[in-house]
Amino acid sequence: MQPTEIKIAYLGGGSRYWARDLFTELALSPRLAGRIDLYDVDLAAARRNVAIAEAIFDRPEAQSRFAVRAVPTLPAALREADFVLLSIEPGPIELRFADLEIPARHGVFQPVGDTTGPGGLLRALRAVPVFADFAAQIAEHCPRAWVINFTNPLTLCTAALAATAPQLRVFGCCHEVFHTQARLAELVARQFGAPPPDRREIDVDLGGLNHFTWITAARWKGQELLSLLRDELVAPGYFRSRTRAACGRKQEGRWFESDGLVSCDLFRRFGALGAAGDRHLAEFVPWYAGSEAELHRWGVVATPYAWRRHRARERDRSPQVFAGRPLRAGDEECVRMIAALVGHEPIDTNVNLPNAGQMPGLPAGHVVETNARFRHGAVTPIVAPELPAGVQALVRRAADVQALTLRAALTRDIDLAFQALLADPLVRLPTDRAWKMFSEMLAYVRGALAGWRLPAT
Amino acid sequence: MQPTEIKIAYLGGGSRYWARDLFTELALSPRLAGRIDLYDVDLAAARRNVAIAEAIFDRPEAQSRFAVRAVPTLPAALREADFVLLSIEPGPIELRFADLEIPARHGVFQPVGDTTGPGGLLRALRAVPVFADFAAQIAEHCPRAWVINFTNPLTLCTAALAATAPQLRVFGCCHEVFHTQARLAELVARQFGAPPPDRREIDVDLGGLNHFTWITAARWKGQELLSLLRDELVAPGYFRSRTRAACGRKQEGRWFESDGLVSCDLFRRFGALGAAGDRHLAEFVPWYAGSEAELHRWGVVATPYAWRRHRARERDRSPQVFAGRPLRAGDEECVRMIAALVGHEPIDTNVNLPNAGQMPGLPAGHVVETNARFRHGAVTPIVAPELPAGVQALVRRAADVQALTLRAALTRDIDLAFQALLADPLVRLPTDRAWKMFSEMLAYVRGALAGWRLPAT
Amino acid sequence: MQPTEIKIAYLGGGSRYWARDLFTELALSPRLAGRIDLYDVDLAAARRNVAIAEAIFDRPEAQSRFAVRAVPTLPAALREADFVLLSIEPGPIELRFADLEIPARHGVFQPVGDTTGPGGLLRALRAVPVFADFAAQIAEHCPRAWVINFTNPLTLCTAALAATAPQLRVFGCCHEVFHTQARLAELVARQFGAPPPDRREIDVDLGGLNHFTWITAARWKGQELLSLLRDELVAPGYFRSRTRAACGRKQEGRWFESDGLVSCDLFRRFGALGAAGDRHLAEFVPWYAGSEAELHRWGVVATPYAWRRHRARERDRSPQVFAGRPLRAGDEECVRMIAALVGHEPIDTNVNLPNAGQMPGLPAGHVVETNARFRHGAVTPIVAPELPAGVQALVRRAADVQALTLRAALTRDIDLAFQALLADPLVRLPTDRAWKMFSEMLAYVRGALAGWRLPAT
Amino acid sequence: MQPTEIKIAYLGGGSRYWARDLFTELALSPRLAGRIDLYDVDLAAARRNVAIAEAIFDRPEAQSRFAVRAVPTLPAALREADFVLLSIEPGPIELRFADLEIPARHGVFQPVGDTTGPGGLLRALRAVPVFADFAAQIAEHCPRAWVINFTNPLTLCTAALAATAPQLRVFGCCHEVFHTQARLAELVARQFGAPPPDRREIDVDLGGLNHFTWITAARWKGQELLSLLRDELVAPGYFRSRTRAACGRKQEGRWFESDGLVSCDLFRRFGALGAAGDRHLAEFVPWYAGSEAELHRWGVVATPYAWRRHRARERDRSPQVFAGRPLRAGDEECVRMIAALVGHEPIDTNVNLPNAGQMPGLPAGHVVETNARFRHGAVTPIVAPELPAGVQALVRRAADVQALTLRAALTRDIDLAFQALLADPLVRLPTDRAWKMFSEMLAYVRGALAGWRLPAT
Repeated sequence: MQPTEIKIAYLGGGSRYWARDLFTELALSPRLAGRIDLYDVDLAAARRNVAIAEAIFDRPEAQSRFAVRAVPTLPAALREADFVLLSIEPGPIELRFADLEIPARHGVFQPVGDTTGPGGLLRALRAVPVFADFAAQIAEHCPRAWVINFTNPLTLCTAALAATAPQLRVFGCCHEVFHTQARLAELVARQFGAPPPDRREIDVDLGGLNHFTWITAARWKGQELLSLLRDELVAPGYFRSRTRAACGRKQEGRWFESDGLVSCDLFRRFGALGAAGDRHLAEFVPWYAGSEAELHRWGVVATPYAWRRHRARERDRSPQVFAGRPLRAGDEECVRMIAALVGHEPIDTNVNLPNAGQMPGLPAGHVVETNARFRHGAVTPIVAPELPAGVQALVRRAADVQALTLRAALTRDIDLAFQALLADPLVRLPTDRAWKMFSEMLAYVRGALAGWRLPAT
Repeated sequence: MQPTEIKIAYLGGGSRYWARDLFTELALSPRLAGRIDLYDVDLAAARRNVAIAEAIFDRPEAQSRFAVRAVPTLPAALREADFVLLSIEPGPIELRFADLEIPARHGVFQPVGDTTGPGGLLRALRAVPVFADFAAQIAEHCPRAWVINFTNPLTLCTAALAATAPQLRVFGCCHEVFHTQARLAELVARQFGAPPPDRREIDVDLGGLNHFTWITAARWKGQELLSLLRDELVAPGYFRSRTRAACGRKQEGRWFESDGLVSCDLFRRFGALGAAGDRHLAEFVPWYAGSEAELHRWGVVATPYAWRRHRARERDRSPQVFAGRPLRAGDEECVRMIAALVGHEPIDTNVNLPNAGQMPGLPAGHVVETNARFRHGAVTPIVAPELPAGVQALVRRAADVQALTLRAALTRDIDLAFQALLADPLVRLPTDRAWKMFSEMLAYVRGALAGWRLPAT
Repeated sequence: MQPTEIKIAYLGGGSRYWARDLFTELALSPRLAGRIDLYDVDLAAARRNVAIAEAIFDRPEAQSRFAVRAVPTLPAALREADFVLLSIEPGPIELRFADLEIPARHGVFQPVGDTTGPGGLLRALRAVPVFADFAAQIAEHCPRAWVINFTNPLTLCTAALAATAPQLRVFGCCHEVFHTQARLAELVARQFGAPPPDRREIDVDLGGLNHFTWITAARWKGQELLSLLRDELVAPGYFRSRTRAACGRKQEGRWFESDGLVSCDLFRRFGALGAAGDRHLAEFVPWYAGSEAELHRWGVVATPYAWRRHRARERDRSPQVFAGRPLRAGDEECVRMIAALVGHEPIDTNVNLPNAGQMPGLPAGHVVETNARFRHGAVTPIVAPELPAGVQALVRRAADVQALTLRAALTRDIDLAFQALLADPLVRLPTDRAWKMFSEMLAYVRGALAGWRLPAT
Repeated sequence: MQPTEIKIAYLGGGSRYWARDLFTELALSPRLAGRIDLYDVDLAAARRNVAIAEAIFDRPEAQSRFAVRAVPTLPAALREADFVLLSIEPGPIELRFADLEIPARHGVFQPVGDTTGPGGLLRALRAVPVFADFAAQIAEHCPRAWVINFTNPLTLCTAALAATAPQLRVFGCCHEVFHTQARLAELVARQFGAPPPDRREIDVDLGGLNHFTWITAARWKGQELLSLLRDELVAPGYFRSRTRAACGRKQEGRWFESDGLVSCDLFRRFGALGAAGDRHLAEFVPWYAGSEAELHRWGVVATPYAWRRHRARERDRSPQVFAGRPLRAGDEECVRMIAALVGHEPIDTNVNLPNAGQMPGLPAGHVVETNARFRHGAVTPIVAPELPAGVQALVRRAADVQALTLRAALTRDIDLAFQALLADPLVRLPTDRAWKMFSEMLAYVRGALAGWRLPAT
């Protein structure tokens, strides 16, 4: 059987790890073929990813053929694209200073700062207009393409696409739920004395917002898992301080590691399991990240700005790092989605889509994360479970902050953006001090906010 | 591997054809086993179905073993049931006279009269209180069982269960969409010069109400089908009168046959394909069934009351009719659903469930028909496509009539029932004449309406 | 105290009766003054109304001074207007033939045919684009003016303004509820042996759609009135045939007279009192106007097309008919509304506004009729009572037809317009015959449907 | 004309100031008469209020006659009541220690602590079951009475009545909006150099939740006032620190005084004017009351627990304090409402009612504060303005906390109550520390929480 020919437009030269995983997964898909056009405002960054791609598709174990090139303009990348993949960094990495360090100086501590909180908000103000422009150009050059966003803040970048060009076929992808499934697979291993099953065997009822998703039921071979988890949580010491572990993680740079304690604390308090990394969950509520010490007590460490900047610079220096490694199938669901959409193996998986009924407590059109069916030419959302009333209150609040931020960013309205900032759970500064913080943040990224009427400094 | 042991409570001794199909499908399921308790108010009817079951499970090609018996009380049937199947006739077949013949005398002509229209309404008034009682007893004797309703009016009987005991796990099953998929499979055959594919290969986006369901997109191997259908419809003569064909069908008793002309006319007028038999579709709108001649013009014949009564009586006389035939797998999706729910092969199929978001234009809780996922221990609805605005208006109207009827039947409120009757699309009698018709209908079935305050006659 | 100076733009030279009443009411308002610019596509028509106005303001009993003139362009009329009054006829009166006579030939009988039914629909298709254009020009020339619509179909013309320019301050006015209050005042007289009170003393809870409004409670000096009405209805013979009375009315041209029997029949069947003339109510449901004979049985007569045409022609011939009569205060609430809005006596009265919550069962933004408060610079709707479930079903259906019609007219979509026609309660023709009727109607008014893609004839 | 005879049941012996104002207003209403039965669990408290009433009705300037007595049982008070007034203290004043002092020890500072925040929550847990019982008894003994609640938390006590007995005619009354109108009257005085007009002349568009109500437009004689206020706010120093003023207020016990700075800061940040006292507004958002020093900076002082207890004890000692003062009409709108409901002068005023559409962004049934019309036998809500999006987010959040609290209190569910506490804007403790605080609070009021399953101490 001939492989299906597709054209992928890959926008953003950002993460080389993610680029590696994507190309690897494509290289291991014998039923797909075609070409990939990479575009980035920094052509050199796109070229670095071309080099990675070539190294991967040249591996002997590669099973598919894709022609990969960097193109100098966005329209060139988009033309005839069947799939548009969006993974950009909105502005130079140094702008993350404003997202992370300025709030910290005002006492607002953020473990990640790219999704919500003052940092997620400022990042959204930079990214949303870029995505609005992407939407307009996609609508012009490849209106029938599937548009897949990986950029954070995932909800708002995806929403910017959908709001600007509702006719496009847009969704957003994220791995965080997979990690929670993997944690449940380990629970299965502990409870049944067997090796952990594939995380895809863990069937979950879930719903919410990206990085603030909730699992209300989980099953493995007919076995209900959350009650087993509940039994584990009551063990004495389960919720003991993890400060020591967190300090070790910080020292060794294991930023993304945690014990899932925040996720489990939400579960014991609210009756649904937080289905994202603790570092994300902790940013949507005001209880865990009041300070670095508090965050450490829950075993979570913040990713420092300095490391982010360092990694970005290192990347620019050593593009060829992935050449020579044998290809190994990973957990990049995106390629399975593409395969299902062109008519290969169907899959059901979690994804971010405008609410068409799948998330009843939230407004129509708000981008929500639930399971969905991927079939030949169609993505159809699956109705999420009714979240417990307490969780609904938390989720609705986060959605309100997102809606204010989106509208502020689309209309370039600083006052509305500030209202969103005040409404964020991480902010409880007096309004005048919050305004001072916000003014400093805006001033720092001023160059990336073309067309805004910023406050005088 | 051991088969999964289940207990099925089968309520209603009604249709022996349906009983035959169900038992056959079970007999061909090697991974299921257990027992089936049959209950009917008429114990003899239950016993007739036991005889059918035994003949089937005794066939050499049967691959599963079920112990089948008739039990004298409802609690006996329900105790320890994992599945409760409901397929009853609300009252003796002679009451159908009031559903069909009395309205006809007043000029209201109904092709089926068991779903909507005055006949469907009167049938609901009899059936809903019975189902409310079922719900109470199921909640007492087997509250964790899956409750599967096959009885018409399917929406309202299912809704009566859900309204009375919201904690039950209830859904309703119907074949009509399958037939529409089969028609689309024939379209595939015509268009591609191949044998018709299995109807399950036709992937459809659908939503609506039982017997008034709508397909907005259909795909087969990536080929969009509705545009092909649209091309066929513009052929000269496609919508010519089918009176001659209908007369033939009437003469030969081929009541359930049609040319799908109503379904296709709805498609060309409203942009979505009616996904039920023409005889059902024609009852939800006032355009096709104004008279028998008009109905015939569209190729549709009404099932006469006399035939229904005759068939019921014949059944009572010749219970053993199915013995001796070789078993053949059919299209009874119910057993596949059961298998998926106990953890075997998962399936996605259409089903009737209270609206939890899957049908956005209709009220929360209203029983709607959409696709759903059947997995181990869970049925999860899939979000229906947004129906075209014109279709939404028709569906909402039908849902309003159903909601009035349900409330009237649950509270035994004759005035409200009459409002439902007036709001029905088939009724356009002056209100005083409609009242006369309704009074006669009520008087005829008076014996089946215990506890109602009926109008004096 | 100086009178308040206002400028009124009066668009449409239509009804001279209504013009007379409006000018009279203004002439009797000593606290108002200013000028009135009349505009009509037919300048002569505007001038005829100027003549009427001058005759009225010249009367010795006139208490206010308004400068009145006909202006040749719409912008001239709108500039600096504080109030814009809209009362137009969409096209020459002869187009009403298509609204009324063509449907009648196909068996669809309409007592009025300007609000709903095929006639109301066709009239909307002509009027809505005109109102969309008015909205654009008002938004340009006098964006802060109060825009008051009197043109039928009132709901859709008002909705066209609001949909086109949501920032405008728009409402629609109608007398029908006043007449129902007057009928209740007569009930008071009958029951208490006193002269009928002023209709404004009858406090009503009401809601619905224009010409399909419903009263759920009525009070006069603390006395609940609907229970008294209910007592009257059970008298033997109350609902006897009124054919004889109707024939008399028809013979003598008393088109607008009835016994309120339809309103009362709706009350006994549905528990809320229809609050519009029977001729209007009978068009929103399929029970009363199946034929002229049926309509007569309820005491209602249809206004013939021939009379409408005759009256319009007569008007053109004898403009000066009102000169010389003494001025008498009437029931034209519009001037009281204007007075309240400029800060004089506040009033609460019924009015048509986009739904901002006042009519919970209907979609947000749909133009609904409820009570509202008129205060200095503000109209605020009062929450309508919850209508009985049966009434809600009827109202929702009518609203769905209106929404389809509005969208069809704004987007010039013939298919959608036909769906609206099919969904109308008065239509139960087979779809092909309905299409034939609709095609003939469209062909007749083709000249007034610029920019539509009409079916070939 | 004879005065209208009414019976008032007055439940709760609480505030003698409020009792004085109510009796005074009644005494100055010549068109009302009848009797007042006072009931309190502490009969002596009821008798103290009888003494106040007698002193007032005995004044020579009293214009109405009411027989006033204390009755020993609730049914005795309710029987034949036309109006039920509810103004109770849920438990001895000493329980307020748990509402105010325990949270303060954990760093949660509350200016009032009877509406929201941990204190409002705990008070609701005590009060809601009492109000549920009131509702049941009112439904039994005087189901047609108007039930008027004055007890805090006003929203939740009113909601408890409506949830328990939806058929009752319930509303809640509060003065806070009047004070905001009075502040706007002073603005008029400043801007126009005239004496401040009566606050009733200030026409306001408003909506929200009690103590968290918002004014979006205000008019006085056609003059828009909020733009004038906006002009004042930009004056240099307007938002300067008010710490000195606050310290003075604290020293002199002027607890209820402020400069409206919080209300105005909300206005400049969010575009709508907070329409309650600053001390209340500051509790619904996390920005103003982080500490006593922060609160003082905005000119607001917290009412200390010690003073509350002292005042309550003093009251018990000196019941006769009001005798001998001349009666002066006050601002107690309640008696005007009563008068309107019995058919005297109609009024429109703000009031708390279950949402029937008047507050579109909030769920149906949630008790909201908007304007309403009081007429003979009817209270009808007026649709609130659409609040700015940022305000909606704040109000929705508060409503979510209230809904969780109500459900927790009605079902006596400690876990849900704790979720409500965590969701409250004033709480940002880590969840384990919040639980410790909550446990201590519960333990303190344990005696008032009969029927709850409290955590072991």
